Amino acid sequence: MEKAVIGIDIGGTNTAVGYVNFKGEIIADCFLPTQGYQNFNFYIDILSKEIKNIIDKFSDKYEFSGIGIGVPNGNFYTGKVEYAPNLGWEEEVNLAEIFKLKFNAPVFITNDANAAALGEQIFGGAKGMNDFIVITLGTGLGSGFVANGKLIYGNDGFAGELGHIIVKENGRTCGCGRKGCLETYVSATGIKRTVFELLADKNFESEIRNIPFNNLSSKDIYEFALKGDKIALEAFDITAKILAKSLADVIAITSPEAIFLFGGLSNSEEFLLTPLRKYVENYLLKVFQNKVKIVKSELIDKNAAILGAASLIWNEITI
Amino acid sequence: MEKAVIGIDIGGTNTAVGYVNFKGEIIADCFLPTQGYQNFNFYIDILSKEIKNIIDKFSDKYEFSGIGIGVPNGNFYTGKVEYAPNLGWEEEVNLAEIFKLKFNAPVFITNDANAAALGEQIFGGAKGMNDFIVITLGTGLGSGFVANGKLIYGNDGFAGELGHIIVKENGRTCGCGRKGCLETYVSATGIKRTVFELLADKNFESEIRNIPFNNLSSKDIYEFALKGDKIALEAFDITAKILAKSLADVIAITSPEAIFLFGGLSNSEEFLLTPLRKYVENYLLKVFQNKVKIVKSELIDKNAAILGAASLIWNEITI
Repeated sequence: MEKAVIGIDIGGTNTAVGYVNFKGEIIADCFLPTQGYQNFNFYIDILSKEIKNIIDKFSDKYEFSGIGIGVPNGNFYTGKVEYAPNLGWEEEVNLAEIFKLKFNAPVFITNDANAAALGEQIFGGAKGMNDFIVITLGTGLGSGFVANGKLIYGNDGFAGELGHIIVKENGRTCGCGRKGCLETYVSATGIKRTVFELLADKNFESEIRNIPFNNLSSKDIYEFALKGDKIALEAFDITAKILAKSLADVIAITSPEAIFLFGGLSNSEEFLLTPLRKYVENYLLKVFQNKVKIVKSELIDKNAAILGAASLIWNEITI
Repeated sequence: MEKAVIGIDIGGTNTAVGYVNFKGEIIADCFLPTQGYQNFNFYIDILSKEIKNIIDKFSDKYEFSGIGIGVPNGNFYTGKVEYAPNLGWEEEVNLAEIFKLKFNAPVFITNDANAAALGEQIFGGAKGMNDFIVITLGTGLGSGFVANGKLIYGNDGFAGELGHIIVKENGRTCGCGRKGCLETYVSATGIKRTVFELLADKNFESEIRNIPFNNLSSKDIYEFALKGDKIALEAFDITAKILAKSLADVIAITSPEAIFLFGGLSNSEEFLLTPLRKYVENYLLKVFQNKVKIVKSELIDKNAAILGAASLIWNEITI
C-alpha cells in the first residue's frame, strides 16, 4: 500500500494539518486554532482526533507512516519545543514524545524554517541540490541551511538563526533582547520599521504619512511601491541592500548553489528580488560572483509549511 | 601491512611533506622551497622524487595509500588549484591529476584551512565532534566548517571564506579587491593595521612609535602587550571584539560544539582567547550562551598542516 505521512504546521495563531503522499500531494487537510483552549492537553486531544480521522478515512488506500511537525523553537534532536513564547506553552514541551505515544509511529519536529528547507529539497526547487539555503520572510526572518545534502541542525539543534546575526551595532531593538539583528531590518516588520524611519528622515510626500504604524502591513508597502510611492520604493531598496550584504557573507561561508526566499515579501520580484540580486553580486567575493541563484521558493503558492513538516518524515523513512 | 599516507602542505614560501600513519604519527618528513625553480614542472619533479624516496624507504613497513595536499585555493571537487596568486603558478593547475598519474594512488586536495579542520577532526581536539569550526589566523584568516560530521565544501568547493565576510562597510582595503573584510582586522596583518590606527588615534606613549610598519610582527605586538604597552593591549582587545562579533554570527548560523583557533595569534590565551570568550558571550543570542567552547587547536604545536593534508586521505579511505 502507498505510504502517507501527516505534516503539521504549528503557528502562533493557527495549526494546519495535511496528509501527504510521497509525491507531495496533500490528500486531506484540516485547520484549527493553536490557542484559546482550556489548556494545552485539550489542544493536543482535539488535534489528535483530527489526525486520527484523516488517517482512518484513507486507511484503505494509504499506510500511515509518521508525523512531521514544524513549530517555532522545535528541536529536531530532543523532540522538544523549548521556550516558544508565542505559543503560550510551558517552557519545555516534549511534543514528539506526546505524538509518538498517541500514534505509535515515527515523529520528528523542527522549526518552521528548517521544515521549509526540507520541503524545498524534497518537493520544491532544491530537488537534487546538496548545498542551498532557504530564507523565510515573515514577521521575523528564519533560515534553513543545507550542506552536503543534509540540513544543518548544529550541535544543539538550533542552527539556522540567520535572523539574529547582528547587522548594525546598537541598531534596532529585537524581540530577542539584543539590538541590530537582521530580522529587525529584513522581514515584514523590518520593512515597516524602515518605512517609519524614512518618514522621519525624508521630506518626500507620501500617502503613508496618513497611516498609523499599527495599521500598515508589508503588503500595503508593496502596493504603495507599485503606485510609485518614494518612501515605499526606498524602503524596499534598503531592505534588499541589507539582506544582500548578509547573503554575501553567508555565501562566503557556505557557498550554496541557490538561495530560496519564502514568505510574503519574496513575492516582489521587481522591488525585492531584482535589486537583491544586483546588490549581492556587488558585495560578493569574486570567486562566488555569477554562481549563486537567488530565487523565490517553488513552494510559495503551495502549502509549504505542511509539505515541509511532512518532509521531516520522508527524509527519514524509505519509501 | 600498516597503511600510511603522504600529507603535503604547500605554502607561498615552503612546501612540507610528511608520511603519516593512521595514528597521526609523522614517520618521515622533508621540506623544500615552493618557488625559485626553472619552472613549475621542475618543482613537481623534485617534490615527486622526495615523496618517492620516503615511500620507498618505508616500503617494508608501510603500504603507501594516497596523497593529501593542502594548498591555497585548492579545490576538493576539481582537484585543481584555481587562481592562487601567491604561488605564481598558471591560473589553473590540476594538481590532483598530476600526482595521480605519477603515483597511481588516490590524491585529494583542499585549501589549508579545510585541511586544518580535517586534521583537528581526525587527530586533534574535534575527535568525535560533528559540528565545529576551525579558524586559522595567519597572514589572513581562513576557516573550515564541519556540520553533520562533514566538511562544508559548498557547491563549488570554495566554502569557508569567513575571512572575507564584510565586517565594516567601506572599511580597510583587502587583498581580495573589496573593503572591510574580517581578515583585514583579524589576522597577523590585521592586528598590525589596528596598532597603526591606534598610533594615529591615541596619544598614549608607546615604544611601537619607534618601529616602522614593515618591521613590526604580530609576535612583536604580543611581546609589547606582555610588557603592558597600552597600544598593543588595546589592539588585542579590539581584535578580540571584532572576531567575537563574527563568531557570534556564525554560531547563530551553524551552532557548533566548539571553535578551534589555529595560528600564531591563537597562542595568546590572556590577550586574545580570554577577551574573545567574554565578548562572544556578550554578543550571543541567548539560546547559544554558555554552550560553545572556544579553544586553541590541539594541533597547534604539531605539524598540523601536514596532518591536515594527510587527513584528506584518512577521511576517504578505510583503514
